[in-house]
Amino acid sequence: MDKKILGKINSPQDVKKLDAAELKPLCDEIRETLIETLSKSGGHLSSNLGTVELSVALHRVFDSPKDQIVWDVGHQSYTHKILTGRKDKLSTIRTKGGISGFPNPKESEHDAFIAGHSSTSLAASYGLARAKTISGQDGHVVAVIGDGAASGGMFYEGINNIGRSHDRLVVVLNDNKISISKNIGGLAKYLSEIRVRPRYFKIKDRIERFVTNIPFFGRWLRRKIVSSKSMIKHAIYHMTWFEEFGFVYLGPVDGHDVTSLCEVLQRAKSLNKPVFVHVETVKGKGYKYAEDNPGAYHGVTPFDREQGNSVNKTSDGFSEAFGKILTELGKKDDRICAISPAMKYASGLDLFAKEHPRRFLDVGIAEPLAVTCAAGMAKNALVPVVAIYSSFLQRAYDQVLHDAAIDNLHIILAIDRAGIVGNDGETHQGIFDVAFLSTIPNVKIYSPSDINELEMCINKAIYKEDGVVAVRYPKGKPAEIPEKFALNSCEKTLYSSGLGDNKNCIIVTYGREYWACTKAVEMLESENTQADILKLVKLECTPEIIEILMQYKNVVFVEECVQRGSISELFGYELAKSGYKGKYVSRTLGNSFIPHQSIDEALTECMLDSKNVYKLIKEII
Amino acid sequence: MDKKILGKINSPQDVKKLDAAELKPLCDEIRETLIETLSKSGGHLSSNLGTVELSVALHRVFDSPKDQIVWDVGHQSYTHKILTGRKDKLSTIRTKGGISGFPNPKESEHDAFIAGHSSTSLAASYGLARAKTISGQDGHVVAVIGDGAASGGMFYEGINNIGRSHDRLVVVLNDNKISISKNIGGLAKYLSEIRVRPRYFKIKDRIERFVTNIPFFGRWLRRKIVSSKSMIKHAIYHMTWFEEFGFVYLGPVDGHDVTSLCEVLQRAKSLNKPVFVHVETVKGKGYKYAEDNPGAYHGVTPFDREQGNSVNKTSDGFSEAFGKILTELGKKDDRICAISPAMKYASGLDLFAKEHPRRFLDVGIAEPLAVTCAAGMAKNALVPVVAIYSSFLQRAYDQVLHDAAIDNLHIILAIDRAGIVGNDGETHQGIFDVAFLSTIPNVKIYSPSDINELEMCINKAIYKEDGVVAVRYPKGKPAEIPEKFALNSCEKTLYSSGLGDNKNCIIVTYGREYWACTKAVEMLESENTQADILKLVKLECTPEIIEILMQYKNVVFVEECVQRGSISELFGYELAKSGYKGKYVSRTLGNSFIPHQSIDEALTECMLDSKNVYKLIKEII
Repeated sequence: MDKKILGKINSPQDVKKLDAAELKPLCDEIRETLIETLSKSGGHLSSNLGTVELSVALHRVFDSPKDQIVWDVGHQSYTHKILTGRKDKLSTIRTKGGISGFPNPKESEHDAFIAGHSSTSLAASYGLARAKTISGQDGHVVAVIGDGAASGGMFYEGINNIGRSHDRLVVVLNDNKISISKNIGGLAKYLSEIRVRPRYFKIKDRIERFVTNIPFFGRWLRRKIVSSKSMIKHAIYHMTWFEEFGFVYLGPVDGHDVTSLCEVLQRAKSLNKPVFVHVETVKGKGYKYAEDNPGAYHGVTPFDREQGNSVNKTSDGFSEAFGKILTELGKKDDRICAISPAMKYASGLDLFAKEHPRRFLDVGIAEPLAVTCAAGMAKNALVPVVAIYSSFLQRAYDQVLHDAAIDNLHIILAIDRAGIVGNDGETHQGIFDVAFLSTIPNVKIYSPSDINELEMCINKAIYKEDGVVAVRYPKGKPAEIPEKFALNSCEKTLYSSGLGDNKNCIIVTYGREYWACTKAVEMLESENTQADILKLVKLECTPEIIEILMQYKNVVFVEECVQRGSISELFGYELAKSGYKGKYVSRTLGNSFIPHQSIDEALTECMLDSKNVYKLIKEII
Repeated sequence: MDKKILGKINSPQDVKKLDAAELKPLCDEIRETLIETLSKSGGHLSSNLGTVELSVALHRVFDSPKDQIVWDVGHQSYTHKILTGRKDKLSTIRTKGGISGFPNPKESEHDAFIAGHSSTSLAASYGLARAKTISGQDGHVVAVIGDGAASGGMFYEGINNIGRSHDRLVVVLNDNKISISKNIGGLAKYLSEIRVRPRYFKIKDRIERFVTNIPFFGRWLRRKIVSSKSMIKHAIYHMTWFEEFGFVYLGPVDGHDVTSLCEVLQRAKSLNKPVFVHVETVKGKGYKYAEDNPGAYHGVTPFDREQGNSVNKTSDGFSEAFGKILTELGKKDDRICAISPAMKYASGLDLFAKEHPRRFLDVGIAEPLAVTCAAGMAKNALVPVVAIYSSFLQRAYDQVLHDAAIDNLHIILAIDRAGIVGNDGETHQGIFDVAFLSTIPNVKIYSPSDINELEMCINKAIYKEDGVVAVRYPKGKPAEIPEKFALNSCEKTLYSSGLGDNKNCIIVTYGREYWACTKAVEMLESENTQADILKLVKLECTPEIIEILMQYKNVVFVEECVQRGSISELFGYELAKSGYKGKYVSRTLGNSFIPHQSIDEALTECMLDSKNVYKLIKEII
C-alpha cells in the first residue's frame, strides 16, 4: 500500500490540514501500518485496530498538546503515537531504547499523563481540567476509557466528581463490548441496553413527535409531560446514568465512521462543560483474524499476517502451571475458589473456570473488590485464591491490610508477573510486592523458583498456613538448573559448595534470582572458589537462619526487589541487631523505576544477571 | 426513663419476640441510652441516632448471625451492639479493654465483618453471599452503607458485580443527605432527585393509571408503552441506575418509621436475590442539638445533654495548625490547592476552603481519585496538597506510585493522624505510612515533631523539593519540651548531652517519639548518664548520618512504626553494610495490629513511652 497521506502526517497539525475526504484513506493506511508493523514486532493489536478512527478524529478536532488527551490503560494509543511524530519509531515499540507501549510523558508532550494501570484517566483528567479552570489555562481535556476499564472503582469516583464540575472535560467511552476477559458485570449489561436504544440525537424529537401525534390529546399530553416532574420527562431528558450525574451524554456513535466521530467530538468540544461521548468500536477492526478472535490478538508476538497464525498463548510457564495446579486441587477440595480481576486467560485460570465454573469469579478490573470479596468468602469458610499481577495488587494494599489481615482471614494471593516483567515497562514491573506486603502483619510470602516449588507453596498456603498467604512467581518459564541445585522444600534450601569448610561466603536469595546465583556459583566453583547459597522460599528471617549466616565471613543478599522494605534490608537489620561482625553486601534493584526492555536486559542493567553476581562475589572475597 | 423494653433485649432473638407495638418505645429507649451514655463517654453520636430504627428493623427481620449484617465504616453500629448482647458494655466503648467503636468479629459473632475504612461493605458482602450460594449455607447478607461511603469506588465495584449475581444480598443505602463533609458529587445530586420522585411502590400504578385514564387513547397508549422498547417503558420499569445494574430497587422509605422499615426489609428478604433498599434517615435524629448540627455531633467528647455544649472541635493541634499554615501560604501563592477526601473539618481545611474556595476540592470518600487528581493538577503546574489520614492513604498506595511517582509529579501529601491514633483502634492506626511510602522511589518523607517544624516542612515540601513529598504529623497537640531540645531544622537535629565525649550511646528517632526520647534523656542526665539524640525530620539515611553513628558504641532506634519496612530497619541495614561494630538496638511497634485504647496507653503498651525508653537505654549501657 502506498501511504501517501500518512506520509504527510508529522504532527497533529497535519491531521487538521487534510481534506475531509482524506481521513478515511488515512485510517486505512494507519491500519495497514499497524498490522504490518505488529506482525513483525508484536504488541497490542486488537485494541489499536479498534481505535484508529477515534484517534484520527480526536487529533482532527482537538489541538494537542494544548488540549490534553489521556488514554486509559494506554495500550490502545499506538495510532495516537503515529499521529504525534512517532510513526517512524513504531517498530521499536516496547524494546530497549524504543518507544513505550503506553503513553509516557517523558517520551512526548502529546502524552498528557502516564497510564499503564486501568481506570485512572478520569481522575487524572479531572486534575488536569481543574488546573486549567483554576489557573485560566486554555484547552480541553479528553479522557478515553474502554468499557473494561470502566469496571474499576476510580471510573465511578471520576464520574461522581466530574459531572458536577464546570470543567472543559470530555470523557470518551470506547465501548467495544469486550474487555480482556469477558465483562459480565452490571455495567456491561447497562451499556448493551443503551446501545439498543434509539440514537440520542433523535430520541427527544422522536418521543415528542410520537406523543404530539396522538390524535386529540397529543398536544395536551406533551405539555403535561414537559411541565411535569414525571418519570416520563425524566426518561426523555435524563436518558442515562451519566446525565443524572451531571454530564451531557452524546452517543452512541459508530467508532469506525470518522466523519460522525469528528462531528460528535466537535459538538462535545463546543459545549465547554463535562460531556460523555459513547463510542462503539470493534476490537481488531479491519483485520479478519483479530476481529474473529480479538482476545487472541490482544497482545501478540510476531505472526504471519496472511495466515493469521498468532501463537499468542494466553499463559505459559508459571501462569499455566498455576492454573493446572489450582484446577487439580479444586477437584479434590470444593472449598477452593478462584477470583480474577479481568485476567482469566493471562493468569492461567481458564482451565479452572471451565472445570469449576461456580467457584470462579471474574470481577472486572476491580482489584480492591477482588481482595475484599475474597476476605468475605474466607469468612464463610471457603478458600479463595486471588490470581493477580504483582503490579496490580498495588491497588489493593489497603484491602489486604484492612479487610483481610486485621481479622487474619485465610486468603491466598497468587501473584503473577512478580519481579521484572520486561516489555511493558515501568508501569507494570512487579518489583514492589515483597516490600509492601512485608509491611502488613500476619502476611506470609512465598517465592518459588520452579514449578515443583510452586506446587508445594500453593499446597502449603492452602493447607498449612492461616491468614493472608502470598505465593509470588515470575513471568514466563522457569530456567533449567543443574541437578545439584534442585529444590525440594518450601521453606528454604541450603546449598553447600563442598569446597572445604571455610565458610567464606554465602549468597542469600529467592525466586528467579536463584537461577542467576546457581550459575554464578558454578562459575566460582570452576575456579575452585567457595560460595554457598541459602535459597529462601518463605521470605522470613528466623533465628535459625541468622545462626547459619553468623558462621560466614561474607553474606551477600541478591534480590529482585526495590531496596527499601526489601528482604535484604530485613536481613541487614537482623544481622546488625545480632552483632554480626562479618561483611554484609546486598544487591537489589535499588530505588528507581525500571523502563521497558526485555527481562534479561533489565536484569543485566541492574547487575542481577549471573555474570554480575559472579563479579560481585569475586570482588568481595 | 424506665427502659423496661430494652431491659428484655439480650440478643436479636428478643427483638423478634416483641409485640409490634413495642418497637417504637424500644427505639425511644435506645435513643435515650445513646444520648445518656455518649454524653458521658463520648463517641459517634449523630450517625448512631440516625440508625436506631434501622438497626431494630434489621434485627427484627433478619436472623443474625445466620443472616450476616455488614456495617460500612461501622461507626453507626452502636444500636446493633446494644441489641446483640453488648448493651451493658456501651459505656466502655472505645476504651482499653472495652468494646470497639467499630464492628469487630473478635468481639461478637454478630459483627460479621471488620469495618473501619469506608465503602468496603458491598465487596465483603458479595464474598459472604457468594460463599453462602456456593456452599449452600443458609441465610442472607445485608450491607448497610451511608451515602457518604457510597462515594467510594468500591461501592460501584460492588454494584457492578452484585446486581448480576443471584445471591441473597440486600444493600441498604442509609441516605442521610450528609456525609462528614458535605457531599457535593453526582451521587448526592442523583439521590436527591430520586428522593423527590413518587414512592417506588406507587409509581408503576400511578403512571399506568395516568396513561390509561387518557380518554379514548389511553388503553391503546398503555399497550403501546408496555409492549415497546421505548424510553417510557424503560423509565417505568428501570427507575434507577441500581435497577439498570440488576438490583430490585425498593424505596425510598422513611428510616425512622420502624414499621415501614420492617415491611420493606421483609419484602427485600423474601425476594432471595440482590435488592437495593433506599432508606432516608436524619443524622442526629431525636436529639435537637445534633439534628441541628450533625457535623458537630459526629464524634463527640463528653457533653452536657441539657445544654448541648459539645465542644467537639473539628480539629486542633497539628491539624488546625496545618490548616492555618496552608491557608496563609495560599494567600501568597495561588498555585497552592488543597484536596480532601471528605475530611474538610477534621483535616483543618475549613479555613482554607473559606479563604480559597476555588482552590479547595472535597472529592468525597475517594482517596484514589484524590491522589491521582492531585497528580493531574501538578502536571498542569499547580501545587496540590492532599490532606489525608495516614490510615486512609493506604487506599491510594498505587496512585501515589503509578500516577504520581513514576512521572515524579510534585504533589504534597499532608498526612494527619500519623502514628497511634488511640480510641479508633486497629482499623485506624497510622502506623504503616512510613513503611509503605518508603517502598516508592522518588517519595520524600518528613516527620515534624512540633508546629514550628511542621511549618518548615510544609514550606520545604512546596518550595525546595520535587516529586511526591509527604509531611506526616500525629493526632492532637505537640508536647511541650524543654528549651534545650528545641528544634530548628527540617533535616535533622543532633542533641549532645555534653556529658563527656565518650560517645557511648545515641538515640535515633523522629516525630512524636522525640518527646519520649527527650524525657528519657533528661532522666538519664539526672543520673549523670550520657545519651545523645539524633532526631530526624527528613526520614533518610545519608552517609553523613552513618558517619555520625559509627562513632558511637551503641545506636538505639526508637520509632512509632511497624517494624517491617521501618526506618530503623533501613538504619540497621546501612549500619550492617558499613561494617558497624557496635551494638544496634531498635524499638518499634513490632509487626502487629494495635487495638483501641488511648494514645498514651498504646505507647506504653508498646514500650515507647519515656520510662520504657529510659529503661531500654539503661539496659544497654
